[in-house]
Amino acid sequence: MEKVKESGTMNNCEVETPKNITIKGIISLLMQSVDEKCDRSVISLGMGDPSAYSCFHTTPIARHAVVDAFQSDKFNGYSPTVGLPQTRRAIADYLSRDLPYKLSSDDVFITSGCTQAIDVALTMLARPSANILLPRPCFPIYELCAAFRGLEVRRFDLLPDKGWEVDLDAIEVLADQNTVALVIINPGNPCGNVYSYQHLKEIADIAEKLKILVIADEVYGHLAFGKNPFVPMGVFGSTVPVLTLGSLSKRWIVPGWRLGWFVTTDPSGKFIKTKVVEHIKKYFDILGGPATFIQAAVPYILEQTDEVFFKKTINILKQASEICCDRIKEIPCITCPHKPQGSMAVMMKLNLPLLDDISDDIDFCFKLAKEESVIILPGTAVGLKDWLRITFAADPASLEEALVRVKSFCQRHNKFI
Amino acid sequence: MEKVKESGTMNNCEVETPKNITIKGIISLLMQSVDEKCDRSVISLGMGDPSAYSCFHTTPIARHAVVDAFQSDKFNGYSPTVGLPQTRRAIADYLSRDLPYKLSSDDVFITSGCTQAIDVALTMLARPSANILLPRPCFPIYELCAAFRGLEVRRFDLLPDKGWEVDLDAIEVLADQNTVALVIINPGNPCGNVYSYQHLKEIADIAEKLKILVIADEVYGHLAFGKNPFVPMGVFGSTVPVLTLGSLSKRWIVPGWRLGWFVTTDPSGKFIKTKVVEHIKKYFDILGGPATFIQAAVPYILEQTDEVFFKKTINILKQASEICCDRIKEIPCITCPHKPQGSMAVMMKLNLPLLDDISDDIDFCFKLAKEESVIILPGTAVGLKDWLRITFAADPASLEEALVRVKSFCQRHNKFI
Repeated sequence: MEKVKESGTMNNCEVETPKNITIKGIISLLMQSVDEKCDRSVISLGMGDPSAYSCFHTTPIARHAVVDAFQSDKFNGYSPTVGLPQTRRAIADYLSRDLPYKLSSDDVFITSGCTQAIDVALTMLARPSANILLPRPCFPIYELCAAFRGLEVRRFDLLPDKGWEVDLDAIEVLADQNTVALVIINPGNPCGNVYSYQHLKEIADIAEKLKILVIADEVYGHLAFGKNPFVPMGVFGSTVPVLTLGSLSKRWIVPGWRLGWFVTTDPSGKFIKTKVVEHIKKYFDILGGPATFIQAAVPYILEQTDEVFFKKTINILKQASEICCDRIKEIPCITCPHKPQGSMAVMMKLNLPLLDDISDDIDFCFKLAKEESVIILPGTAVGLKDWLRITFAADPASLEEALVRVKSFCQRHNKFI
Repeated sequence: MEKVKESGTMNNCEVETPKNITIKGIISLLMQSVDEKCDRSVISLGMGDPSAYSCFHTTPIARHAVVDAFQSDKFNGYSPTVGLPQTRRAIADYLSRDLPYKLSSDDVFITSGCTQAIDVALTMLARPSANILLPRPCFPIYELCAAFRGLEVRRFDLLPDKGWEVDLDAIEVLADQNTVALVIINPGNPCGNVYSYQHLKEIADIAEKLKILVIADEVYGHLAFGKNPFVPMGVFGSTVPVLTLGSLSKRWIVPGWRLGWFVTTDPSGKFIKTKVVEHIKKYFDILGGPATFIQAAVPYILEQTDEVFFKKTINILKQASEICCDRIKEIPCITCPHKPQGSMAVMMKLNLPLLDDISDDIDFCFKLAKEESVIILPGTAVGLKDWLRITFAADPASLEEALVRVKSFCQRHNKFI
């Protein structure tokens, strides 16, 4: 009896904890394995948060907007749980600039960063026996969230030799009558892909054929610096309903402000029935949401931010991505199958047979942290064993220095030298 | 086949939407029924957010702390998902002031308001066939959250004639081997109760006997102005593990800042095993959390806020609660079984047989909104039909005016005049 009662306490949580690796979890372990006696500074190319580097600094427009909203003293109280009306309106207008139709305020729900928008999307779709199609590799919060919400995950490959495009054939094979959605991250994390209009159209067509939604994670929206311009998935909202997820975090370099959005992009009204909207609204009643005064600053931020600021960020990211690819070319045991065209990260393949005493990507990253004080995310954390995800959103000098150390590390561990 | 495929879209959300009334939902409907042609201003005694009234204004200490953290430009990036270390430490120290032992930083998890802390608690406890004991009446987010997370709800009464104390006998009858926790809200919403040390001890003893956790919602912590001082449930943490939920929202009158906490108060280590902590930490990885710079302001706010500020708030609340009770005494069809001793709300009983053409509490509130432009929450929204919840956290003049209108409404609808 005592044993049965024990199962009524939190002690039994352990059996339910998802086993997923998280990026923050593994980076924290990597940081712990840095040699403290080493007098070189730690350089992290592990996280997609460039706000620590002075070359990535948000615009004064955004900073003033927050201070003004705060100082006005009008926004210390609760906002509606779905967000302030003016904030929803401003985000609808902002996203509509790039769409062939106009979103309404009612399509927009304000979230605490894009992370909460991911949770909203997956929770709204979860039901017994439902499954969701995730890319491999993928930002790992999707799988963790699916595990907490009871949604089965099925994986389709992104194809490195085709610019990390979606393996469309795999989608058809994986989907069944319990498939609720497929996820694309564009511009891509961890791959740095920026999909063409044509490829996005193909994704929309196949989702429409399979009668599943598209969840379009556009947290890196507009951060494109290669041949393809950024095209929002919502452009194909008339073909297939799209849930668009985004935030201020990356484009404005303020991930700590926790201002994101969950947007139903469905101009033909295929899924936004009154009752679905009621369901989403009810769910927002149990979420925390972002600070009211930060929400209040959003209209000014979205309307007033100068193109010069955006271009500066794009230029630094482009330069950083080129440094990254050029330096990696000098390292035989690491190859980059596809130069990044956007976002802040790139996937690199480890050629393990060239390396002595390195068993896999995780071993590589732990030894690199210990010997060189450089943090890189092992590909296993994003679903690709024996790959690396390098975040190039660092100031160019730190990036150069980090890659010199990676080169030195690889030379030291090279089997044939 | 087409029909089967349809079930794979969001259209089927409707079958799963919890039917619960939310406070914001019903207040929004009440606002819509206000007569727009009426030239009197609308007075809302419906929501626990006094920040709109100038007499309830946060302290300059808190405002400066947020501006300083923001202007330092050090907190635009991500915080750890469980919260900044210095913020966790400051909250541990703040709560430990009133406990017979010291909390550690690791006991504290930072949430986006107390709402997110409620969700964390209920999600961590949810598992197939588990049930949770909620008070009746209760802040309705608990039931809504339990519905979304698949936790069965069982209700124990709060006893109006005993100062809204917990019906301890009912707890014993309701609990079984699948019961995971009981919830108390102290100081109470919606009842205005402040429990004695002795009553809290009785609750701890019974929870220990039944081997269930206590979730102590202390979002109104320290807002006590009657005979009982505020005693945190964590005082009994050595008897029974307590999950303490709180926030800056009410004591600092800044609900829009969305800064709350989820705290494991378990000095004897009954449930905080390593794996439970891992489980909680993993869950925080999928939550949004509050803005980093607001978190960074918390240590200064908790350490530096002057007692004078707290006393001023308490004095206004005490005065407001007395106005409320005195004016209600003049209205025969409404009675207050227990004068509030804390928080910002009180429950009043409707004597329907005295009223003409009013069918129930909901009808009362809709007609009151329409005829008098006064918003009061029907008791049904908190689980007690034919009661009213009045929020007295308004400036005294507005409160007086609102209650004059309620009196006039009741006289007009009195069956015997």
